[in-house]
Amino acid sequence: MSYTLSQLLTVLNQKGCSVTLRGDEHRSIEGLATLKAAQSHQLSFLANPRYRSALQASQAGAVILSPDEAESFLGDCLITSDPYLAYSYLSHCFDESVRSTDGIHSSAVVAKTAKIASTASIAANVVIEAGAVIEERVVIGANCVIGAGAVVRKDSRLHANVTLYHKVQLGERVVVHSAAVIGSDGFGFAPQKGQWQKIAQLGTVKIGDDVEIGAGTTIDRGALEDTVLGNGVIVDNQVQIAHNVVIGDHTAVAGCVGIAGSTQIGAYCTIAGAAGIAGHLTICDRVHIAMQAQVTRSIDESGSYSSGTGLMPTAKWRKSAVFFRQMESWIKRIKEMES
Amino acid sequence: MSYTLSQLLTVLNQKGCSVTLRGDEHRSIEGLATLKAAQSHQLSFLANPRYRSALQASQAGAVILSPDEAESFLGDCLITSDPYLAYSYLSHCFDESVRSTDGIHSSAVVAKTAKIASTASIAANVVIEAGAVIEERVVIGANCVIGAGAVVRKDSRLHANVTLYHKVQLGERVVVHSAAVIGSDGFGFAPQKGQWQKIAQLGTVKIGDDVEIGAGTTIDRGALEDTVLGNGVIVDNQVQIAHNVVIGDHTAVAGCVGIAGSTQIGAYCTIAGAAGIAGHLTICDRVHIAMQAQVTRSIDESGSYSSGTGLMPTAKWRKSAVFFRQMESWIKRIKEMES
Amino acid sequence: MSYTLSQLLTVLNQKGCSVTLRGDEHRSIEGLATLKAAQSHQLSFLANPRYRSALQASQAGAVILSPDEAESFLGDCLITSDPYLAYSYLSHCFDESVRSTDGIHSSAVVAKTAKIASTASIAANVVIEAGAVIEERVVIGANCVIGAGAVVRKDSRLHANVTLYHKVQLGERVVVHSAAVIGSDGFGFAPQKGQWQKIAQLGTVKIGDDVEIGAGTTIDRGALEDTVLGNGVIVDNQVQIAHNVVIGDHTAVAGCVGIAGSTQIGAYCTIAGAAGIAGHLTICDRVHIAMQAQVTRSIDESGSYSSGTGLMPTAKWRKSAVFFRQMESWIKRIKEMES
Repeated sequence: MSYTLSQLLTVLNQKGCSVTLRGDEHRSIEGLATLKAAQSHQLSFLANPRYRSALQASQAGAVILSPDEAESFLGDCLITSDPYLAYSYLSHCFDESVRSTDGIHSSAVVAKTAKIASTASIAANVVIEAGAVIEERVVIGANCVIGAGAVVRKDSRLHANVTLYHKVQLGERVVVHSAAVIGSDGFGFAPQKGQWQKIAQLGTVKIGDDVEIGAGTTIDRGALEDTVLGNGVIVDNQVQIAHNVVIGDHTAVAGCVGIAGSTQIGAYCTIAGAAGIAGHLTICDRVHIAMQAQVTRSIDESGSYSSGTGLMPTAKWRKSAVFFRQMESWIKRIKEMES
Repeated sequence: MSYTLSQLLTVLNQKGCSVTLRGDEHRSIEGLATLKAAQSHQLSFLANPRYRSALQASQAGAVILSPDEAESFLGDCLITSDPYLAYSYLSHCFDESVRSTDGIHSSAVVAKTAKIASTASIAANVVIEAGAVIEERVVIGANCVIGAGAVVRKDSRLHANVTLYHKVQLGERVVVHSAAVIGSDGFGFAPQKGQWQKIAQLGTVKIGDDVEIGAGTTIDRGALEDTVLGNGVIVDNQVQIAHNVVIGDHTAVAGCVGIAGSTQIGAYCTIAGAAGIAGHLTICDRVHIAMQAQVTRSIDESGSYSSGTGLMPTAKWRKSAVFFRQMESWIKRIKEMES
Repeated sequence: MSYTLSQLLTVLNQKGCSVTLRGDEHRSIEGLATLKAAQSHQLSFLANPRYRSALQASQAGAVILSPDEAESFLGDCLITSDPYLAYSYLSHCFDESVRSTDGIHSSAVVAKTAKIASTASIAANVVIEAGAVIEERVVIGANCVIGAGAVVRKDSRLHANVTLYHKVQLGERVVVHSAAVIGSDGFGFAPQKGQWQKIAQLGTVKIGDDVEIGAGTTIDRGALEDTVLGNGVIVDNQVQIAHNVVIGDHTAVAGCVGIAGSTQIGAYCTIAGAAGIAGHLTICDRVHIAMQAQVTRSIDESGSYSSGTGLMPTAKWRKSAVFFRQMESWIKRIKEMES
């Protein structure tokens, strides 16, 4: 994998980035690296001002810079208003993950009624059940299981060991990482004299286009209607999305988040790691939920929301925690003094 | 899938529900839906009074109602004291999940010493190791691995990609969802000069009858004795149950809960999502643990328990969090004023 | 599995434990058990003084004891300064987990360019992709997928259904439990007008020697550089380790912990269950993070750190939570009274 700077410029232009090349357009670039680690055959970038000090000392062959940063830099560079975005585009030039060869591996078990596009790649030991549809250029990694009637639209990629239950629908260009499960039963049970009577989960899961689902994430099928993820939603690892949740377009959900049943989350939200969102809530567009926040009520105003207490040395924390428990009596004492 | 109202009445009667049919007993029902979404070929139900307003406007062909709600409703209905329970029974009539055909798929790898009942269904690419026992009518989904000597009792169902380690025992009518792991090693290590010496985990996991285990849930085998789940326990997705935990009958554990080693939880408890329960505790029967609660002590009185702080706008929360840290000094100032 | 006490003494001596046998050296021991459960053919141990009362009543055939405890005990015993460590060594004598036979199962799909040591064991339906290296005595459980160019060094063991992505490197004697995923893409996206542009994750994951990875744990590959776990690190189930995290030697990470991107954790740390650690932090050596703690800042002093509020009856907790929200105004009232 080797590109000249002018080839990389072309890649960026094709993506719609306005970029200027300053320096040796024939310089050969064989990889990407941080400013600190980069060597003369590598390209780096400066996106966060706090790494500015690393720029002058960098051994990088070239650097992606904003016009302002480029002024005081003498080396070769690609100049663009959003260096981080340019880096994101170029990162794919250097991706060494191996694309599976086309066709169906001889060890895969594919039901006769499944429809597999001729350009799809089905890896070893994959199982595809009756009536499933795998569209053009889809890549299904080793040991995946695609349930009956599931649909994987074109250009999607499932990494190894993914499970799709029956009738699940994935959009175009969806990426699903290993050990993710989509379409498992929602946690629906009717109480009956202290025991639990299981409710069959008759809906499915519908995933939009350009969605990414992280490793070990689970998305349950709906009870009657469907669980729905909009277009451009990105979901990190080990996220739990319960039945009938609806997530709006371009919302990002970080690792270890849990979203309980029937909650609706708007578009352009960002849910930080390990936040817990109770069921049957409505969260409007453009809400940021902080790490580990405990969301037990609906949110109808965009903005940032938090809960919890900051980290403290344990001995000191124990005292604050005791006072938190006694809060009612301390408030009473304040009131008594006031009156 | 189509039933007349009178056929559905029969199903409910067979389940022991006392139900009255009012209206056209020949009406054909092809599915279940919410009051809002239901059409004339579908059955709906009213279980939560806050949806009462949707009843009159509903296009449902028939509705499951309590006697009180039925009084003011003119359409066809099934009248019973617990509409939600009746719905749970009827949901299974409309379940489109495909049952695997009987027998062992040719691609499955089954040890000679494993015992597989003739009515069991073993899907493609399943691996069953030496001495495992699979009883009558068990369904093992694609790509599952059943460890040596494991036992799956009759009428249980493992969805795709489940892993049972050696000697794990599942009861009758147990359901296990994809990517669940039962019988992995407990996290047992002896400290040795700052390093960790692994302790072999010699117990196993015993799961009772009528248990449901969610997708991505992990249950570790015991160190010396066994990890035990009683009858009728229901466990949601991505729950972590550590070694030697014991969970009493009919307890429900919601998604993302973590239960540390050797903790004993009583019967008829409900543990809400993402609660964390420390090790070596005893929780009595009929305890409710709220979402994300931090359980660090035993509970010997039934009731509801919580911890954490409510959700706040981040800017406002930061101030409260600072005061929480300073709590000791503020309490001191209150005391000084009092004296 | 049966050993005489003198054989067990030999095992301990070979591990470097200084042990004295007191009693019948020919006594046959067929298993390990707790003091309470042990019978005459079993060995037990007393490591925690709070179980001292169980010692005199124990039916164990022999007990591992410290010199002090042994003084007042009349039965057979193995006397050593650290009974728990001795137990950890002996536990492996009684491990019934079946070792797979050597060689490659006929159903495994192994790329021609993969290098598999002749003493390695590759179970049924395993998929090993191009250029992967599996060293001596490695055991790969059923249905594992080993990505292209991945390396598993000698004496490591992967349980069933593990996924290693391309180029991931595991050290020697590493144990990985089922449904774990190592090397999935880090959660890296550049914002672009409210949408997310995926950044190819070009680094990999490097795991040291003697590391244990729990069931369902996910470890993402680095964006540019690698995600790194040092030697002797132990990681429990359902832990999420994001891209470019570095974990120092002999650190222990309990279940359900989430560690966000680029955070560096020192050596000899212990992170308790469900703690959440934000990204881009530095945690020094020998830090203990308490259960469910919310770590949002770097830690440069060893010691124990906590956050959260203790568990309370829900009705009482609600009042404290309300006062927490109003904290700013209560503090203001205290100040007004003071002045």
